[in-house]
Amino acid sequence: MGFIEKYHAAVQQNKSLVCVGLDTSPELIPQGMSVLDFNKAIIDATADLVCCYKPNMAFYEAQGQAGWETLLLTMHYVPKNIPVILDAKRADIGNTSEAYARAVFTQLKADAVTVSPYLGFDSVEPFFKNKDYFAFLLCRTSNKGAADFQSLPCEYEGKKRPLYEIVAEKAEKWNVNKNIGLVVGATYPEELRDIRQAHPDLTLLIPGVGAQGGDLKQAVHFGVNKNLSGIAINSSRQIIYASKGPDFAQAARKATLTLRDEINKHLGELKK
Amino acid sequence: MGFIEKYHAAVQQNKSLVCVGLDTSPELIPQGMSVLDFNKAIIDATADLVCCYKPNMAFYEAQGQAGWETLLLTMHYVPKNIPVILDAKRADIGNTSEAYARAVFTQLKADAVTVSPYLGFDSVEPFFKNKDYFAFLLCRTSNKGAADFQSLPCEYEGKKRPLYEIVAEKAEKWNVNKNIGLVVGATYPEELRDIRQAHPDLTLLIPGVGAQGGDLKQAVHFGVNKNLSGIAINSSRQIIYASKGPDFAQAARKATLTLRDEINKHLGELKK
Repeated sequence: MGFIEKYHAAVQQNKSLVCVGLDTSPELIPQGMSVLDFNKAIIDATADLVCCYKPNMAFYEAQGQAGWETLLLTMHYVPKNIPVILDAKRADIGNTSEAYARAVFTQLKADAVTVSPYLGFDSVEPFFKNKDYFAFLLCRTSNKGAADFQSLPCEYEGKKRPLYEIVAEKAEKWNVNKNIGLVVGATYPEELRDIRQAHPDLTLLIPGVGAQGGDLKQAVHFGVNKNLSGIAINSSRQIIYASKGPDFAQAARKATLTLRDEINKHLGELKK
Repeated sequence: MGFIEKYHAAVQQNKSLVCVGLDTSPELIPQGMSVLDFNKAIIDATADLVCCYKPNMAFYEAQGQAGWETLLLTMHYVPKNIPVILDAKRADIGNTSEAYARAVFTQLKADAVTVSPYLGFDSVEPFFKNKDYFAFLLCRTSNKGAADFQSLPCEYEGKKRPLYEIVAEKAEKWNVNKNIGLVVGATYPEELRDIRQAHPDLTLLIPGVGAQGGDLKQAVHFGVNKNLSGIAINSSRQIIYASKGPDFAQAARKATLTLRDEINKHLGELKK
């Protein structure tokens, strides 16, 4: 079963559009605890409340070889019915991206991956040419520096518009297998609205609520598709570090529940 | 000693502007041999002929945890006087890029890293804010899809020019520690010439000769700075797979020597 089928099933079953970001740093978890045990506790505490998980490879690579093993075991621990987006932001020339795709989908058995568009089509195609793969292209990211390049007015097919809009248009064109989505930060709600209006069917991964300060109501209202779905709202630090004490897993559950219910409340506003 | 000092010393000592790309795939090396032993033999055979090495992380990550160990041991095996550029094409939001920078410079002890600019300043700053780090920003990559976004005419500071030129300008602005370079493919010689003319002092990492078909003479003539240096011309497959037989290391040495001497011949043409 591919990412999108798993995602839809998890959204239904858990009544949730929450993605929990497993961005675990050893120095931020209870002393003496392994990152793997921490992740397992977070997963146990939240698996009935999420539509997906998203570990970011950086936090595991920062721990070297041991980190790679932790990532692998964490991914294997996630219940089979919950899809995992590996946040990798990869892309390279064709034969190299093929190797990254093997790393992500064969070695680590991710359901989806985030990829960076700067190198163009042949650099991202290995992440979606197999129908069982799924790739989220970075479009409008949640960080401050996003404007440096993504917001530059660029000319494409005779029209001038921000670079990120052109990325979204290309993604739409490349999406013949229906296995491409976009990363759009909650910190730029107007851009999120524009992207959703232009691309009613693309699935959006939305980081930037929580620690980054994005507005949740706008993220939901502007992000959802006509079925009031099609988004995964990611929160990492606000959930996994909700408590620094031994009650971290309970606190993570509570934070996930709160986020899920807030999202659902905002979905309810749209039904009226 | 930082990347640039090591690079200059190696250029002098080995009379070489050759970067050997250690993009080793297990299925392309002599049967029964480990990737680590293959890499060691390549390094032994070429260390007096290069100005740097460049392993691409993708080929190691494709082998999972064992690949990570192979990469680490390969990097440790490179003689201390030869700098290593880790080809990673990373970048993420600030706190995540900090983790990648730890992976690259602390765990893997690279001298330099390649980074992708799409997420903007705060996503790449962690790779050059420490003066001992060095980052090559992707500017005009060597692949066919590069034109999809990098060549779009964009507006910046009231002037219209291709996106890759704006990336180069930003890199120049951000280069307060003199530890930023650019990746510019040999497959686009005119763009290479324009970038060198506009940025006489930036170090350029030039992939795309060899298997990708870039013209070597143009890469040298258009790429070098006024001291007839400031470039590292990468070749991966044409060197490491010069022979598929047990003489692969000798063949790699011969291919490196040929490339070094061709580059030096083209440098000689410029001295006239």
